[in-house]
Amino acid sequence: MRLVVIGGVAAGLSAAARARRVDGSLEIVVLERGEHISYGACSFPYYVEGRLARFDELVVYTADYFERERKIQVRTGVEVTAISHPKREVRTAAGERIRYDKLVIATGARQRRKGLQIEPGAPVFTINAPADTIALREHLDRNSRRGAPAAVIGGGYIGLEAVEMLRARGFQVTLHHSGANLLKGDNRRLTELLVKHLERFHVEVRLGERVDCIEKDRVKDRPCELVIVASGLTPNVEIAAEAGVQLGRSGAIAVSEHMETNLHGVYAAGDCAETFHLVTGRPVWTPLGTTANKMGRVAGACAAGARERFPGIVGTAIVRVCGLAVAITGLSSAQAAAAGFEPVSVHIEGYEKAKFFRGRKTGIELVADCRTGRLLGGTVTGEDGAAGRINVIATALAKGMTVDEFKDLDLAYAPPYAVVWDPLLIAAQQLLHQLR
Amino acid sequence: MRLVVIGGVAAGLSAAARARRVDGSLEIVVLERGEHISYGACSFPYYVEGRLARFDELVVYTADYFERERKIQVRTGVEVTAISHPKREVRTAAGERIRYDKLVIATGARQRRKGLQIEPGAPVFTINAPADTIALREHLDRNSRRGAPAAVIGGGYIGLEAVEMLRARGFQVTLHHSGANLLKGDNRRLTELLVKHLERFHVEVRLGERVDCIEKDRVKDRPCELVIVASGLTPNVEIAAEAGVQLGRSGAIAVSEHMETNLHGVYAAGDCAETFHLVTGRPVWTPLGTTANKMGRVAGACAAGARERFPGIVGTAIVRVCGLAVAITGLSSAQAAAAGFEPVSVHIEGYEKAKFFRGRKTGIELVADCRTGRLLGGTVTGEDGAAGRINVIATALAKGMTVDEFKDLDLAYAPPYAVVWDPLLIAAQQLLHQLR
Repeated sequence: MRLVVIGGVAAGLSAAARARRVDGSLEIVVLERGEHISYGACSFPYYVEGRLARFDELVVYTADYFERERKIQVRTGVEVTAISHPKREVRTAAGERIRYDKLVIATGARQRRKGLQIEPGAPVFTINAPADTIALREHLDRNSRRGAPAAVIGGGYIGLEAVEMLRARGFQVTLHHSGANLLKGDNRRLTELLVKHLERFHVEVRLGERVDCIEKDRVKDRPCELVIVASGLTPNVEIAAEAGVQLGRSGAIAVSEHMETNLHGVYAAGDCAETFHLVTGRPVWTPLGTTANKMGRVAGACAAGARERFPGIVGTAIVRVCGLAVAITGLSSAQAAAAGFEPVSVHIEGYEKAKFFRGRKTGIELVADCRTGRLLGGTVTGEDGAAGRINVIATALAKGMTVDEFKDLDLAYAPPYAVVWDPLLIAAQQLLHQLR
Repeated sequence: MRLVVIGGVAAGLSAAARARRVDGSLEIVVLERGEHISYGACSFPYYVEGRLARFDELVVYTADYFERERKIQVRTGVEVTAISHPKREVRTAAGERIRYDKLVIATGARQRRKGLQIEPGAPVFTINAPADTIALREHLDRNSRRGAPAAVIGGGYIGLEAVEMLRARGFQVTLHHSGANLLKGDNRRLTELLVKHLERFHVEVRLGERVDCIEKDRVKDRPCELVIVASGLTPNVEIAAEAGVQLGRSGAIAVSEHMETNLHGVYAAGDCAETFHLVTGRPVWTPLGTTANKMGRVAGACAAGARERFPGIVGTAIVRVCGLAVAITGLSSAQAAAAGFEPVSVHIEGYEKAKFFRGRKTGIELVADCRTGRLLGGTVTGEDGAAGRINVIATALAKGMTVDEFKDLDLAYAPPYAVVWDPLLIAAQQLLHQLR
């Protein structure tokens, strides 16, 4: 029995490693078209910033390690160009045919650049694939000039991280975002907070401005010595689709809770695949590293014969924007309304911990369904406490908790770490007034 | 209609304030035997340490504020010595009789000193009541000598906070603890970690050593210029018990989920009362500020005619010990076994966040029930991330989550705040192996 895994990063290697644990005798081959494997792509902005000296420091395991310790063959530089499921084989760019019994597709996602005209010689980079990222770091190490103008196109997570990174590198940054609101695109309050915060760091934010063309030395009316394109991802599904693998409405690969596609024995995991949203009860495409790893584990386990399942996500994410933590989970009010709920929401500010332990303010937004009192989502802005607080909301969402239950949560309190009435509980109390 | 509240701190004032919101016309009288009200007792160690200049900074609201803004009469220096429920009146030490229609007992808890002989003139303090705490701070401001020997008796939360405070004040500290294990008293691993940590700060920890006598200048065989007694609390239930209010097995006042005692119209809340443990399903006495506030709110609401309930706690607490965060929630293995569960547990270490964001190690212990797979409790040690992680466990416990569900939680990830596989999830994965 041979398992072939297409893709050697988060989902692919999680699948391979888990398959090995489930079945010690399985032949496992991982095919990665790039030269790098097992890297933490979420750390790319910090590598570019200079917090890590070498790209290698982002690599968790080497191909050697997998070969030696896990008996997993990892082949880099091997691009799969076609899958023939009737023949149970994949074909590579080099013309090789590799037979499989089980297949895991973990082809990831790529930076979308469609419709963007780039003048030859324009200093344009992405922070998505390793090669681009390394090229960007090298470019910056050679060419950085304090105060030079730079542009970031796209105000999602990666765009915002790119802004912070460029600021740390001394650039004067303009952020161009085609939508009216940053991040998820429907939270006006959060957008206003972010714009205000970014302006304090002399970042110019231009919302609702589509960039169609990057000139050699300018973007729109602004001179520009460096451009980072972070205008969204698209799943790498072409070879899967051509092989008859069904896509979901999002355009990513549709999978069961066992990560199996419509083709028996063919699994998909990670940024190329959809998952299930536990709040809406519908498939969703949310390309994030944590989800990719979890999906990969289940795909690998199931491909190796175990019967595991991945129930889904609630859509938790956090990003640091010039020192500010911005975390979201579940549904925004607009998403909740679109999903058929009757959302009410509240926003409060409170201290993360005692003021005499340098506690700063944190902002909490909670969204709930009027009809059932069920918590639907939340946003947390602040400092180090934001991750813990968004995770509490995420845990509550995973179990369908009501706001009434949430307000009674037994959260930890001591002055160095919290306040006696945690802002989460105050927000829930206030939201409850709207529900009664 | 008149509501009388005995006790003007967390539970008592929460009850009064909430009662006012529910019923604008109710006459509300709060009787506090001390001269201070509305103070944050959990901050006492930090006030003594010197992080706050004046005791006033610990006071949230003044009696004036309650009078003016809430139409709540707060009388300090009024000690209630008896309750006559048949007559619906309380009697004070000054001989006054105050009639009530509804009564909330929020008499708190006091430092236990029973069986402790103290030689006259011995420099013995507690950090429980305001007067003691202020006296200790004044004593230290006058008498501190760097390197002077000090003793702390009792290795619970307050004892450990006292150790940190005395270290910050420059004392050479010995901690005497009568039990074999610190804190909850049954976690060997946690005790070993704490002892090792304290020894790095030159704190001598003497376990299993009962102190019966404090001499003028020594405790046991050690010279000593200052002693802090923190050997546990006892609920102030005497006047309630004499009035026929039923106590629970813990010795604290037994209450319904509406905080009502066995006497109709008499409620109890805060450190003098029991609450319900959501994991064991049994009454428990856990005197903590967060719980006191929540119980007070419900007692006040119900006394004023609303029908609210407080479902109970899961036993979450956090303490800082010389910079180390130690957080617990739910049941330890020993408590789980005693409660009739069949506990299995796991302990792992992992990074709180990316190493290049100065992430440090955090220790996670999870306890689950073998028969049902249900999560029963956890311990987290670490730094700033400990509060957030213990709160995730606490949220899971409140909804009776299984380890299998817990391992799939959608927790936030970005290098400045977390790692891609959160230690909580790794612990759950490992615990699952023991459950299968």
